[in-house]
Amino acid sequence: MSDKMSVLAVGTVAFDRIETPFGKRDRALGGSAMYITMAARFMCNDVRLVAVAGEDFPEEYIEDMRSRGIDLRGLEIKPDELTFAWGGKYHYDLNNRDTLYTDLNALSSFNPVLPDAYLDSKILCLGNLDPVIQNSVLSQVTNPSIVICDTMNYWIENTPHQLNNILSKVDCLVINDSEARELSGTANLVVAARKIRGMGPKIIVVKKGEHGALLFVEDTIFSVPAYPLEDIQDPTGAGDAFMGGFAGYLSGCADINLDALKSALVYGTAIASFTVEHFGPEGLYNLSMTDIYHRIGAFRNLTSIPEEILNQS
Amino acid sequence: MSDKMSVLAVGTVAFDRIETPFGKRDRALGGSAMYITMAARFMCNDVRLVAVAGEDFPEEYIEDMRSRGIDLRGLEIKPDELTFAWGGKYHYDLNNRDTLYTDLNALSSFNPVLPDAYLDSKILCLGNLDPVIQNSVLSQVTNPSIVICDTMNYWIENTPHQLNNILSKVDCLVINDSEARELSGTANLVVAARKIRGMGPKIIVVKKGEHGALLFVEDTIFSVPAYPLEDIQDPTGAGDAFMGGFAGYLSGCADINLDALKSALVYGTAIASFTVEHFGPEGLYNLSMTDIYHRIGAFRNLTSIPEEILNQS
Repeated sequence: MSDKMSVLAVGTVAFDRIETPFGKRDRALGGSAMYITMAARFMCNDVRLVAVAGEDFPEEYIEDMRSRGIDLRGLEIKPDELTFAWGGKYHYDLNNRDTLYTDLNALSSFNPVLPDAYLDSKILCLGNLDPVIQNSVLSQVTNPSIVICDTMNYWIENTPHQLNNILSKVDCLVINDSEARELSGTANLVVAARKIRGMGPKIIVVKKGEHGALLFVEDTIFSVPAYPLEDIQDPTGAGDAFMGGFAGYLSGCADINLDALKSALVYGTAIASFTVEHFGPEGLYNLSMTDIYHRIGAFRNLTSIPEEILNQS
Repeated sequence: MSDKMSVLAVGTVAFDRIETPFGKRDRALGGSAMYITMAARFMCNDVRLVAVAGEDFPEEYIEDMRSRGIDLRGLEIKPDELTFAWGGKYHYDLNNRDTLYTDLNALSSFNPVLPDAYLDSKILCLGNLDPVIQNSVLSQVTNPSIVICDTMNYWIENTPHQLNNILSKVDCLVINDSEARELSGTANLVVAARKIRGMGPKIIVVKKGEHGALLFVEDTIFSVPAYPLEDIQDPTGAGDAFMGGFAGYLSGCADINLDALKSALVYGTAIASFTVEHFGPEGLYNLSMTDIYHRIGAFRNLTSIPEEILNQS
């Protein structure tokens, strides 16, 4: 038995082709479910993955995840199909990228049926995916403590009704700043977060890439900067690793209150900072809790306002 | 006698034409020296302005500044000349603007000679201006405690030698993120700050607009977010008001150490947040120290990482 809540993540596993100004990788292990679970496992020993792969998915990649404690009973391998594949090329400043291709392959007919052992999952991460699939997974879990959802511009533009349906059922939306603006139809992020709260989720996390993340819950706003790094290799998966770190932290919280959510935001941002220092998921392979704690201490130094600021002579 | 250090700001006074999605103003009081001094005065009762205006500059604008305690002995009024005029139009998200026109007018022949009473100025703000003029002012002040300099892409591109000359003589450079990247020739802001430190200034402040500001000093990085506001009317002057708040806070510090610089960054960001809530300098007119302290408390709530983050069960 675990003393922490279980984390279930549905999303993709993928072959990623990545080009940045600092190098490239082809057929690297990728996908939102992979990044979420590989990040969540640092804080949680019961992390469950739901995804689909094709028959070309290497045993080595399965072992990469299994050896790190990810429960893969929800990974469906479809014979006669190929694994979802994505290619992206980042611009010189790493803030923008062009998608080179998106081959859905096995993902196009994905209709997940959760293993019985997953039905009691407590922290549910609905990674960026067709909202119909997100909805299907949500409907199968019996009594989640918190449902955290990601999405992207494709679903905002092409399946707004299905997206609105899932949004009405989740507790927390994790979303990029540009997508928060698009979803709400407003440029101001404070107004955007309020409008999105009106669609259902009571907790909004806005991811701002190199500028960090904002948490909106009730009347509170909490801000965490991205960790300033000299050497960023590849931003791929940073947003998903953030979600995994966020969920992983919450799995150990007896009460998911405001301080727990703030701390989860810091953990998610810290884990994301390790992800971008290497290509693909490599930054998450040999990380220790000591490394993570050390970086969280660095976050405190980065953001702590001096006590004496209001007591100047 | 003042118990604080004096602040001298050289820069522009101007007629601003401002268009944002929320309104427009024509011939509004503007200019970097105006914004710097109008922001610095909250924390300092000896704030000195150096700028030039034409004969069309209204007595009302002079009174706007004088009534708020700005020392205007360094404001030269050129007969038979017109005041510097600038027009800008902001895009829907307020992060980008087009310059509609820049009429130098009296500024084109500005060659400031400081009043004797200014020569002992302690905190020197070299607002965004021709680096030759910045250098001239710097050379006249006898023994400043700290020299803070701003610049912009125009001087980076058109007068690099003169800019490098002034950079080699200043203590602190306050600069936009895009301009820090341009000046250093690197996309990564941590690397950019280190390269710029190699040009002279030991303290680098990078302004990131709606994403706040970063302080780089020795091996320390300190981050302050912009205050999340629902209602932003006009970003004009926010960067200059930041510099004024930053300098104003330092004027009361017996020792300009790391904590003083961090606190100054928070004050500058707080004052800038009031500036953008109104058009032109209107947000700085009726502000009280109570308002400012209240917002600084809000900044602490916005950024304070919960104490228990490292002690999770």
